[in-house]
Amino acid sequence: MQTPWQYRFAQRTQRMKSSTIRELLKLTQQPDIISFSGGYPAPEVFPVKEFKDACNRVLENHGPIALQYGATEGYTPLREMIARHAAQFDIQISSENILITSGSQQALDLLGKIFINPGDKILVEAPTYLGALQAWNAYGAEYITVPSDENGMDTEALENALRYGPKFIYVLPNFQNPTGTTLSLERRKQLVELADRYGVPIVEDDPYGQLRFEGEHLPAVEVIDSLMHCNNHGYYSGNVIYLSTFSKILAPGVRLAWVIAPPEVIQKLVQAKQGADLHTSTFNQMVAYEVGHGGFLNRYIQVIQSTYKERRDVMVECLAEHMPKGVSWTRPQGGLFLWLTLPEGINTTELLKEAIKEKVAFVPGESFFPNGGGENTMRLNFSFSHPDKINEGIARLGRLIQKVV
Amino acid sequence: MQTPWQYRFAQRTQRMKSSTIRELLKLTQQPDIISFSGGYPAPEVFPVKEFKDACNRVLENHGPIALQYGATEGYTPLREMIARHAAQFDIQISSENILITSGSQQALDLLGKIFINPGDKILVEAPTYLGALQAWNAYGAEYITVPSDENGMDTEALENALRYGPKFIYVLPNFQNPTGTTLSLERRKQLVELADRYGVPIVEDDPYGQLRFEGEHLPAVEVIDSLMHCNNHGYYSGNVIYLSTFSKILAPGVRLAWVIAPPEVIQKLVQAKQGADLHTSTFNQMVAYEVGHGGFLNRYIQVIQSTYKERRDVMVECLAEHMPKGVSWTRPQGGLFLWLTLPEGINTTELLKEAIKEKVAFVPGESFFPNGGGENTMRLNFSFSHPDKINEGIARLGRLIQKVV
Repeated sequence: MQTPWQYRFAQRTQRMKSSTIRELLKLTQQPDIISFSGGYPAPEVFPVKEFKDACNRVLENHGPIALQYGATEGYTPLREMIARHAAQFDIQISSENILITSGSQQALDLLGKIFINPGDKILVEAPTYLGALQAWNAYGAEYITVPSDENGMDTEALENALRYGPKFIYVLPNFQNPTGTTLSLERRKQLVELADRYGVPIVEDDPYGQLRFEGEHLPAVEVIDSLMHCNNHGYYSGNVIYLSTFSKILAPGVRLAWVIAPPEVIQKLVQAKQGADLHTSTFNQMVAYEVGHGGFLNRYIQVIQSTYKERRDVMVECLAEHMPKGVSWTRPQGGLFLWLTLPEGINTTELLKEAIKEKVAFVPGESFFPNGGGENTMRLNFSFSHPDKINEGIARLGRLIQKVV
Repeated sequence: MQTPWQYRFAQRTQRMKSSTIRELLKLTQQPDIISFSGGYPAPEVFPVKEFKDACNRVLENHGPIALQYGATEGYTPLREMIARHAAQFDIQISSENILITSGSQQALDLLGKIFINPGDKILVEAPTYLGALQAWNAYGAEYITVPSDENGMDTEALENALRYGPKFIYVLPNFQNPTGTTLSLERRKQLVELADRYGVPIVEDDPYGQLRFEGEHLPAVEVIDSLMHCNNHGYYSGNVIYLSTFSKILAPGVRLAWVIAPPEVIQKLVQAKQGADLHTSTFNQMVAYEVGHGGFLNRYIQVIQSTYKERRDVMVECLAEHMPKGVSWTRPQGGLFLWLTLPEGINTTELLKEAIKEKVAFVPGESFFPNGGGENTMRLNFSFSHPDKINEGIARLGRLIQKVV
C-alpha cells in the first residue's frame, strides 16, 4: 500500500531503490563478521595525534574563522596545498582549477547535476565504481559499458562505444574500484586520443593513485591530456576533469576531496555546490591543511603504502592456499581492492547469504555492472582487516567456495 | 563563444546561472565594508574553547571511529541528542525520524532530489529563502507564491494557491528569512488544516526558532500537525517535514543540520544522501555531540539570544534615527534579519551599487521573490556586526536613502 508520501516521490527515485545486495551488506556490519566488503582504510594507522594537534592549533589561532561560514570554492591555503601536491605528479594547475568537495561522492553528484539530463549516456568501464552509478542514476543517466581486463579499460572496444554518443567517459585508471587493475600507459594514450577525436570529455577518478606500493607510477590521464592541449592561460583547460580525495591518504571521516577542472567547469560546479551544501566544513578544511602541509602528507602516505602492501601480500597468499582450482584473482600493485572470479554458473549474491552465516563478507560483483553481468565475481577489500583476520576470513571463504565449485 | 565544455552542460544549469546580485554581493566581502548582507552568526561568541575541549576528548577516546567512514543516517548519539532537544519544544520523535545533513542547504537539495520532477510547482512565501530556490531550481522547480505580512504567510491567499497543485508547501514560520516575521498561531493552525484538506505536505524550515529573544514561543507547525495526525507507531508519521540546524545555535563552520520526517521519507532521503555525499563528517558529528550534550546547548543558546537582542535593538534604534519618512521595517522578536521597505519606485539593486562605494552592504529584496517583485525592499542582517558597526553602517545607508527618496 502506498503511504501519502510515496505517491509524491519524484519519478527518478524509482532508480535509487535499495537492492537485495544493499540489504545483505547491512548485515555485514555486525561486529563479529570479518568484512572484506567496505572500502575502509586501516583505522590502526589513522594520524590521530596529528589531527588532535591540528585541531588545537586551528582553534587557538583561528577559532572564529574556523567555526564561521566559508567560501564555496574552499579554503584557499588548502587549495594551494593540493596544487603543490598535485605538481609532484606533474599535474600543473593553480588553485583556480580546484574545488573542495564533501568527499569525492559529492564531486560525482555535482558532475551529475551540471552534465546529466535524463537519458544521457555515460561511458563507463564494466565493472565500475558503484558510487558513481548511485550518484548519476538520480539524474536519469544511462550507461554504455566497455569491458576491462588486467590492463584496465579495453581501448579497442572504446572506439566503437564512443559512436553511441556518451556525455563523458568515466574511468578509474589506478587500482580500479572494484577490480584493482591499472590502465596501462599505452591505453592511457589511446584513451586521450580517442576522447579528443570524438570530442568527448573524460572524468578521471583517482582516489588510489598515490597508494602504489609496487611498480612504477604512471602519468595521470590528465597529464597526458595536458601535453596534448597546451595552453597559454597558466591554468589547466584540457579535456579531463580529475577527482581525488583525502579519504584514502588522510582520513575519510573528515569528508574532504577535490575536483581539478578547467575554470568554466569549476564555475558551474561552484554554483551547483552552492545549492547542494553551500560549502564544505571550514573547520575540517583548516584542520586538514594543518595536518597535511609541511611534508606530513607524503610521510604518512608511505605508512599507508607499507600497511596495505603487507595486507595485500597476506590476502594473495591466503587465496593461493585456500581457493579451489578454477578460481582466479587480480594482484593489484596498490589501492584497497582485489577482484575474484569464480567458475561460470556460481552466483556470488547467493554465496554472500551463506558467507554471512559463516561470519565473512564481500561485495558481489554484479553490483558493479550497470547493464548486467559479473554474477560469478566478487570484490575483496584488503586494507581494512588486520592480517590475522584476513587469514581467517579467506580460509572461511575458501571452505564455502570449495562446497560450490 | 562556447568553450568545448559549455555545450555539454545540462539544460537545467541554465537555471543556476550567476545573477547580477550575486556578482554584487561578492564585492561586499571586502574587509572594510560594513556588511549586513550575509546570514552570519556573531563570531565573537562562538564556543571556541568548548569545541577545542570536545575535539581533544573525541580524538583521545574515539580517534579511529571519528576519522573513519560512518553511517549515512548520522551518528546515533547525536540523533538521540537532537530528539531529546526537540522534545523540549514538544516535537515527539525518535532517532529513526532523524537524518543528519551537511547543513540545512543539503536537506533542501535532498528534498529536491526525492520530490521534484522538472516543472513541479512548489508553494512558497513571497519573499522566501533564496537558498531553497537555488537548491530547487537545479531540479527544474517552478513556484506558486503566496504573499506575507507582519504575521507571516497570508493563509487567506493560501487556499486559492493550493488549487494550482503544488508538490509541497515551503514555509519558514519563525523570524523568517528574509523578513524576520513570525507566522501567528492562528495562521499555523489554518496552514495545517488547509494542507491536510488538499493533501499537500509541508516543509517547515526552522533554523531560527530557538533564537527568540522576546515574546512567547509558538508551537512548531510540526507539533500542530502531529496533534491532528495521532498515530500508534511511536514515531512521527504526519504531514510535515521539519528542518533545523546547528549553524545558528552552535557554529555554521561544522556544517551540521537535521531533517525530521516520517520514516518512509527518511529512507528515501538516506538513499539520496548516499549518492550525494555518502555521509556527513563523522568527526564533526561526534564533536557536536560532545559540545552540545549535558546542558551546554541550552546555556549557549541564551548567550546568542542576548547578543542578538542587543544588536536588533541597536539596529532598530539607528533605523529610527537615520531613515527618512516613507521607509518602514520589521521588528523581529528573534532570528538574524529584518526587512526594510522603501517607497515604491526605488530600486535597491541600483542602490546596492552606490552602497558598496560607501562601504556598506545589504541584500536587495528582489532576490527573494521567485516570480518577481520586491524591487524596493532589502534584507538587513543584525547578528554579524558589532553594535558600533551597526550604528555606522545604518547611518551610511540612511544618508544614501535620503538622497533617493
